[in-house]
Amino acid sequence: MKKAYRQDIVTWENGRIITRVDQLAEEVPLELIVDHCDGEHWHRQNIAVTMRTPGEDSALALGFLFTENVIQSFADVEHLDERLDTSRQRIIVRLQDSVRIDMQKLTRHVFTNSSCGVCSQASLDQVQKICPQKPVMNKRVDPEVLLTLPHVMREAQKEFGRTGGLHASALFTWDGKLLLLCEDVGRHNALDKLIGRAMRQGFMPLHDTILLLSGRASFELIQKAALAGIPFVAALGAPSSLASSLAATMGMTLLGFLRQTSFNIYCGRERLLVRSSSDHS
Amino acid sequence: MKKAYRQDIVTWENGRIITRVDQLAEEVPLELIVDHCDGEHWHRQNIAVTMRTPGEDSALALGFLFTENVIQSFADVEHLDERLDTSRQRIIVRLQDSVRIDMQKLTRHVFTNSSCGVCSQASLDQVQKICPQKPVMNKRVDPEVLLTLPHVMREAQKEFGRTGGLHASALFTWDGKLLLLCEDVGRHNALDKLIGRAMRQGFMPLHDTILLLSGRASFELIQKAALAGIPFVAALGAPSSLASSLAATMGMTLLGFLRQTSFNIYCGRERLLVRSSSDHS
Repeated sequence: MKKAYRQDIVTWENGRIITRVDQLAEEVPLELIVDHCDGEHWHRQNIAVTMRTPGEDSALALGFLFTENVIQSFADVEHLDERLDTSRQRIIVRLQDSVRIDMQKLTRHVFTNSSCGVCSQASLDQVQKICPQKPVMNKRVDPEVLLTLPHVMREAQKEFGRTGGLHASALFTWDGKLLLLCEDVGRHNALDKLIGRAMRQGFMPLHDTILLLSGRASFELIQKAALAGIPFVAALGAPSSLASSLAATMGMTLLGFLRQTSFNIYCGRERLLVRSSSDHS
Repeated sequence: MKKAYRQDIVTWENGRIITRVDQLAEEVPLELIVDHCDGEHWHRQNIAVTMRTPGEDSALALGFLFTENVIQSFADVEHLDERLDTSRQRIIVRLQDSVRIDMQKLTRHVFTNSSCGVCSQASLDQVQKICPQKPVMNKRVDPEVLLTLPHVMREAQKEFGRTGGLHASALFTWDGKLLLLCEDVGRHNALDKLIGRAMRQGFMPLHDTILLLSGRASFELIQKAALAGIPFVAALGAPSSLASSLAATMGMTLLGFLRQTSFNIYCGRERLLVRSSSDHS
């Protein structure tokens, strides 16, 4: 039940650079497949792909099928693979032959057209395939500028609503000027809104910009940033393992735990104005 | 651009009850519809339903279509309804006739079979329809017990990984004993895992239990709890407007901002052991 992924990172703290090992929450796609009967024939169907932390995958499959109203109880399951096929990251649930699935009613529904199956590497490859080019940044960012961004974002949020329940995405120039800020109960929506506004204002691709996320950085958020050409992402919270891998693959800079005096650098350190003489390990 | 929803709530603080008005982040479903051409004919297709905070909906639609790789730029859009049809909460995007959609490639894809369209009330009705019965609680909960739960959850999380990047769902008995705890990078997954484990252990329905959420409480999390029969939900973060409405509709208790000495009560106050003589407003 591996939930943490160890990675060498760099912490910037009050001008000092400390190299250390960090534990990142593991994020790996899981494919949920259901064998079900329509009364006459059995079908094998891909029901969902979810980005999850490995462990308790059969419980995840059961809970998903229950809360999506596919099964009413454990008795509706004829067979459940307890062992995960780790090479493919997929789990197969065989329903009782009396259980019917109405695919139209599933609210979370994901199709994949990947012929090589679903895995972390396939997810990274897919983003590279659909990204026209890697994000570009011709500037180096001053760490002292970065430390000011959370305050600027919070002040801008005040103008809207302060419910304590909204995620925010904010876009800054490389030298710290706020360009756009969007809020939403959903972190994906906040970033989609920001990218939509940037598109309409003719800002795309968003080279030489910094994206600040009010929460954690997941794979899907980094994917959106990459597609929009954003080279530099900083999160107030933690990044996941796959978010960090994707940022590295796309040649982006990813920071996490951005605080008043410190932050962690997961990749792309070369875009920071840091004196290497201050290196400590 | 209404982002906050005002609701009368009760704050419990060190044994005192204070009634006040709270601002909740608004969460309302939005239907995204695309008019597109397959080379010969035009089609109107429901692409997604997303739970979002109203405002900047056309930007959300644009950003969604871009990050789902449906459009490459704003030029791919022929017409975008800037005015939202508020009675239906849907937005229609007409693509240029040269833009083809591969439905199979959309990663976030939601079907609805609701004939009355998508709106908050329809979402509430739908949950009532699929819930076999309302969650049941025959006990009243001592506020002092509630205050201990976050600490118990954090201690239990220590046994796993402390990456700072995992959401947790924890299930307690009405008197504060930890039954189950599940973690995941995704908050939906953490709760699905918990419900899946409860199913396998024969605990369903989860009457007389308390669910503690490490983050915010969204509509979908309350929906899952209701389906599993959980009558009492407490979140360390804020609930959304629709989460609060659903909890009230289902006769559940919903608490938010659970801290060491205080919490907010959004609905279901009757399940708490509170002396009404201590009421202040």
